[in-house]
Amino acid sequence: MTATGPAAQRVDDAWLGVIEDAAFVVDAGRIAWLGPRSLLPTRYDASAQVDVGGRAVLPGLVECHTHLVYAGDRTRDFADRCAGESYETIAARGGGIQTTVDATRRATQAELVAVGAERCRRLLEHGVTTVEIKSGYGLSYESELKLLEAVAALRTRTPQRIVATCLAAHVVPREHKADRSAYVAMIVDRLLPEVAARGLARFVDVFCEAGAFTLAEAVEIFETARGLGLGIKVHAEQLSHTGAAARAASLGASSADHVEFVTASDAAVMAANDTIAVLLPGAGLFLGAKHKPPVQLLREAGVGMALSTDLNPGTSPTAHLPLMTTLGCAWLGMSPAEAVAGVTAQAARALGLDDGTGTLRVGGPADFVVTRWSAWKRVPYEMAGAPVAETWIGGRQRL
Amino acid sequence: MTATGPAAQRVDDAWLGVIEDAAFVVDAGRIAWLGPRSLLPTRYDASAQVDVGGRAVLPGLVECHTHLVYAGDRTRDFADRCAGESYETIAARGGGIQTTVDATRRATQAELVAVGAERCRRLLEHGVTTVEIKSGYGLSYESELKLLEAVAALRTRTPQRIVATCLAAHVVPREHKADRSAYVAMIVDRLLPEVAARGLARFVDVFCEAGAFTLAEAVEIFETARGLGLGIKVHAEQLSHTGAAARAASLGASSADHVEFVTASDAAVMAANDTIAVLLPGAGLFLGAKHKPPVQLLREAGVGMALSTDLNPGTSPTAHLPLMTTLGCAWLGMSPAEAVAGVTAQAARALGLDDGTGTLRVGGPADFVVTRWSAWKRVPYEMAGAPVAETWIGGRQRL
Repeated sequence: MTATGPAAQRVDDAWLGVIEDAAFVVDAGRIAWLGPRSLLPTRYDASAQVDVGGRAVLPGLVECHTHLVYAGDRTRDFADRCAGESYETIAARGGGIQTTVDATRRATQAELVAVGAERCRRLLEHGVTTVEIKSGYGLSYESELKLLEAVAALRTRTPQRIVATCLAAHVVPREHKADRSAYVAMIVDRLLPEVAARGLARFVDVFCEAGAFTLAEAVEIFETARGLGLGIKVHAEQLSHTGAAARAASLGASSADHVEFVTASDAAVMAANDTIAVLLPGAGLFLGAKHKPPVQLLREAGVGMALSTDLNPGTSPTAHLPLMTTLGCAWLGMSPAEAVAGVTAQAARALGLDDGTGTLRVGGPADFVVTRWSAWKRVPYEMAGAPVAETWIGGRQRL
Repeated sequence: MTATGPAAQRVDDAWLGVIEDAAFVVDAGRIAWLGPRSLLPTRYDASAQVDVGGRAVLPGLVECHTHLVYAGDRTRDFADRCAGESYETIAARGGGIQTTVDATRRATQAELVAVGAERCRRLLEHGVTTVEIKSGYGLSYESELKLLEAVAALRTRTPQRIVATCLAAHVVPREHKADRSAYVAMIVDRLLPEVAARGLARFVDVFCEAGAFTLAEAVEIFETARGLGLGIKVHAEQLSHTGAAARAASLGASSADHVEFVTASDAAVMAANDTIAVLLPGAGLFLGAKHKPPVQLLREAGVGMALSTDLNPGTSPTAHLPLMTTLGCAWLGMSPAEAVAGVTAQAARALGLDDGTGTLRVGGPADFVVTRWSAWKRVPYEMAGAPVAETWIGGRQRL
């Protein structure tokens, strides 16, 4: 295995570049200076200094995979799964995602913005300053646009930076079960051109799995996305191996997400294309934890690893991104450095953000969290703790 | 298998006895009336009514297994475990619990009260109104007493009801490795009589496991405890099968905790003696999740099941009791009703409390939580959510 992408660099404590007794300067929403406090230039106005009392400061957390704009309630599905029914069985009887689709289609855009803003608020409490939001509960031309318009409207309702993704290819909607090619044609011929023209999404995502979309359908959608200048993400190798991770990577995907069943040869293609593996331990655990993504295989292949909540009503109803760092370590075998990089710098790469998001660097956005502790390793160590004391976005305190 | 104890009754939604559109009356810290709101007697003063707006009210949560009075920091152990070292290996090189013991011995009682109060505060935020606290990081006559005195002092520093447990038999301290019988003799001959005479603990607990205490040592300690009128708890069958759960049950133990390796014949003895199985999924997950307690086996045997955080610095640094209900369901296979009973009524039984703690009943303490939602099933459904809007203890709002 030869690791060739920039992701190949081993993520350890040194990679994080922790500065002890640090200071940084914020100017016009960006970081103007950063370094050991003893080297802080005297030209900066000392009267505006904030002393955080020795507490660790991290880059603002980046949540790179959510489905947080949805209506309806899925607690019944949850109780059914506890009673032994499978996700697939519940979906087959019309429960599962169809419940959410029906409720989301009925909801007004204002209702979707309201519930989305509440969920963004909870992410803010956990230190999230940039959040990706997928569509995928509309599943029609009109409803997918309504959902993406709600995401756009959220930009004025939450302080966070939002990255939108069109996941019209989440599942084939009920009314197209006998005619799935017409649904794919609608996405390719009508929806994606409209989304691109109106700037409603930066990425296109496809759930490639038995019961959702085939690899051939995914490739058709990705090639259209590429032609329109949209980025690519893929839900891949979650419940079985389809080959979607490697194929999407070869088409330039920024991330392949879930990847429980990814192989070494897939990982080599991902590393070569700098495709980040987004690991979603909350969903794995919530679904019964039969398979874990192979962290050691990904690490050896040089694939960058991000962590995310997968915030959604069916398989991961959680906004607790710091908990994912604990699960990343304790359950998946990541190091604390990999886990913290996974919700900051690596998550930003999964979103194709190279402006300094997910890092603290001169010229980058002044998005950061002040933790409650002096040691950054307590973020993954404390399980479902409350690590974040303050959340700042663009140099303004928002929590 | 014949289920014989009162725990044999199947815990389902009906068992919970949910009252829709309910009302209850609090008088002098206890519940004076409870029922459908339409039946509320007119004799009660309507001017003092509080309308919780249709949100679900639960009994105050009962946290029945913690080690929350400790000093020191274990994040290094955590990082080492992430790097592949086992809990046993870390303990063997003097890390692990010895780190906590050294720091706790050095700490003053006031320092221990301060950190304990902070951790109780976090439990309060998660709706916990009754909390069990174990000693076990002193591991000498003086240090165990100091720790139990700190627990006693916590009663005036936190609003919660506290149940103290003497876990001097947590591990054999370093200075007694070559002379373990002298340590057991100290517990039996000096410590437990003093603890009982001063009322410093309600229970005695023993960690029965290779590397900790043998079954014979545990039995000696339990028989002494019984003679002194103290209750019995046991850390049993966590990493291997020792027979401690059944043996402690036969001696009248209120609970056997962890029980990953419990057998059907053990479970029959537990059911016959009404010994509750306290499940600690946070610890299982934090240690790498190789084994789960056998929920279906316990259910079929009629063993009552409680859930707890196991709050401690080495294997479960979490105060998030509601998360344990999610893990109980999604990871262990409990139903939502079993999980909610597991942090209320069943947890109270694990503490031998039959005064109505962990339930809402006339004559019982007015300890309750007002959730943020109308549906109680959202407590286990939302993973690491914030289900609790208000926590009331003895009829007074404390959060």
